[in-house]
Amino acid sequence: MLESTVAAIRPLDEAAMATARELQGRLTKPAGSLGALEPLSVRLAGLAGTCPPPLPDQAAVAIFAGDHGVHAQGVSPWPQEVTAQMIGNFLAGGAVVNAFARQAGASVTVVDVGVATPLSATPPDPAARAADPAGPPTLTADVVATPADPDGPRLVVANVRAGTRDMTVTAALTRDEARAAVETGIRVAGELVDGGAGILLTGDMGIGNTTPAAALVAVFTGVDAAAATGRGTGVDDETYERKVAVVRAALARHAPDPADPLGVLAAVGGLEHAALAGLILGAAARRVPVLLDGVIAVSAALAAAAFAPDAVGAMVAGHRSAEPGATAALRHLGLDPLIDLGLRLGEGTGALLALPVVTGAVRVLHEVATFDSAGVAEK
Amino acid sequence: MLESTVAAIRPLDEAAMATARELQGRLTKPAGSLGALEPLSVRLAGLAGTCPPPLPDQAAVAIFAGDHGVHAQGVSPWPQEVTAQMIGNFLAGGAVVNAFARQAGASVTVVDVGVATPLSATPPDPAARAADPAGPPTLTADVVATPADPDGPRLVVANVRAGTRDMTVTAALTRDEARAAVETGIRVAGELVDGGAGILLTGDMGIGNTTPAAALVAVFTGVDAAAATGRGTGVDDETYERKVAVVRAALARHAPDPADPLGVLAAVGGLEHAALAGLILGAAARRVPVLLDGVIAVSAALAAAAFAPDAVGAMVAGHRSAEPGATAALRHLGLDPLIDLGLRLGEGTGALLALPVVTGAVRVLHEVATFDSAGVAEK
Repeated sequence: MLESTVAAIRPLDEAAMATARELQGRLTKPAGSLGALEPLSVRLAGLAGTCPPPLPDQAAVAIFAGDHGVHAQGVSPWPQEVTAQMIGNFLAGGAVVNAFARQAGASVTVVDVGVATPLSATPPDPAARAADPAGPPTLTADVVATPADPDGPRLVVANVRAGTRDMTVTAALTRDEARAAVETGIRVAGELVDGGAGILLTGDMGIGNTTPAAALVAVFTGVDAAAATGRGTGVDDETYERKVAVVRAALARHAPDPADPLGVLAAVGGLEHAALAGLILGAAARRVPVLLDGVIAVSAALAAAAFAPDAVGAMVAGHRSAEPGATAALRHLGLDPLIDLGLRLGEGTGALLALPVVTGAVRVLHEVATFDSAGVAEK
Repeated sequence: MLESTVAAIRPLDEAAMATARELQGRLTKPAGSLGALEPLSVRLAGLAGTCPPPLPDQAAVAIFAGDHGVHAQGVSPWPQEVTAQMIGNFLAGGAVVNAFARQAGASVTVVDVGVATPLSATPPDPAARAADPAGPPTLTADVVATPADPDGPRLVVANVRAGTRDMTVTAALTRDEARAAVETGIRVAGELVDGGAGILLTGDMGIGNTTPAAALVAVFTGVDAAAATGRGTGVDDETYERKVAVVRAALARHAPDPADPLGVLAAVGGLEHAALAGLILGAAARRVPVLLDGVIAVSAALAAAAFAPDAVGAMVAGHRSAEPGATAALRHLGLDPLIDLGLRLGEGTGALLALPVVTGAVRVLHEVATFDSAGVAEK
């Protein structure tokens, strides 16, 4: 499935882009006055292979969740159980990603691709459930759980293993495990597009996951471990120094080859990073745009681009995460983010904030009058 | 009306802001991880005087349109008639601001505060109307025109004079004219808030209006005319040099006193700039946030802040216009823009793109679970 997906990813359609450029020049606005929205609209026409490209009014956020063996090295102040607890929060609709998704009219799909804590062991406590009349849905393993509200968040259980191994000791994943996670992402992309989604948004949850993200950024961009590593959810100086040392040690141990993205993901990646790379590849193969969230997403995007350079044509950078590795990755991919507000939450929150900009860029091609049709004089 | 409005503008409510800060710290996300959205939500609580502040889900864009005597100096390559023609386009729903407003669910009110070309003389030609089944509404003067679609754009005719005088020759407006325009903006703000709007967005239309905006920025911020002047809708080098010289000449002729904002608006302002200053003051007096668009809006915001320094508490900078004067004005006001995508269209387009960010910031305070209620462990 990975190989056939990569083979299906083709360059942007030049003819559709030329049509979009020409149309932008006839709309009732000074040429170029919509700034970055104009080239974005042109690129989305090239991705769709038609102008105007479809309005991406059905949006789907896929939140891939996983845990990390490297958490044992003390790279995060948060207990590992929070990954599973936050899945409960996502399914109950109580997280920031839920609030932003409701506002944007986007669906939320949570994918357990490698959480360490059994999900059924972590519902919010009964008192808290009583306080929230909607309540979290019951979680069941190995099946797609459909919560009571069919439009509410849904859970896909596709747990490859209960968290990665500690990459400072051994490879985080076997190649087969990494492949399974990537193919989970491809499958989720296909299901969401089959379900009508016109744009996919990346989300992630995983205590400790900025550490493998930093390692991935360092491998694929060539920047030093210190330049790729940030403070994640807010670590102190001592933890930050430890985090850089952990990334450096993992890179030294595995010496991953950036030309072998599956090997890189296996050595120093995370299950959610691998699945996100798959989601991006799946979107690109289906010629649907994928709106990237923060540092986890862009580190996965580097892997996707290593699998298939043309996949970059389907990527839209939602925001510039406060994590330094995100900026290094975006530079490497040649992507300019739409939003830059110092967010460092993940979950898909930055992508959701950027969604109206993407939709707006496309909407202009659908709805704005031309100078001719509106009877407006040109300069 | 101006004096009573200014007197009604009060500082932000410290107690509501303290409550919002405390609540932000208990929500299920790392502290500070929503970046600029957190202080924004705190400020909006302070403006509303309650936490959470009302969700600004009913938004209203007010597009003030005017013409400019200084157009005769060759500061724009566009014919002056385009101001009136674009009003027709706004009312027909064909402009970019309409597309973005439909997407955001915002109402559009066009206010002719000083257009030079008679509006009834400029409907789109019949062939173009036939091509657009919705068609533009018929324009009538001196009354509020309600188009066929009650939810569609509406026109308020409050024409103070048919464009300003050429500020390189004489004052653009008398003090009474400037006051009439400011009070029109105050009145429009009041009507929109009375109609249920929870946030006002500034829009503008006026061929040549970046020239008075540059003059206003130079007066209120003290930056040089060249630093305040940009290329507007895209002027060539020769026109740009002429534009700087025109701004410089107007400032030299009038030597406006920044402590006398009505005098500044009269000397070198525009009718839409004055009305926007009034809209901002009206919003601040009603304690409703006002989302600023580009350089015209922020130049007007400087005047509003000169009338009432506490009005800045109600201002949210929607985006960073490509015009250099906008950055100088935002710095002077101490505002960081939410979006920075190189837009230079005006109309309210940049403010509309930023609206979901503002709504999202407030929504977090309404909808996100706390660590306690969601049963999520803290670090």
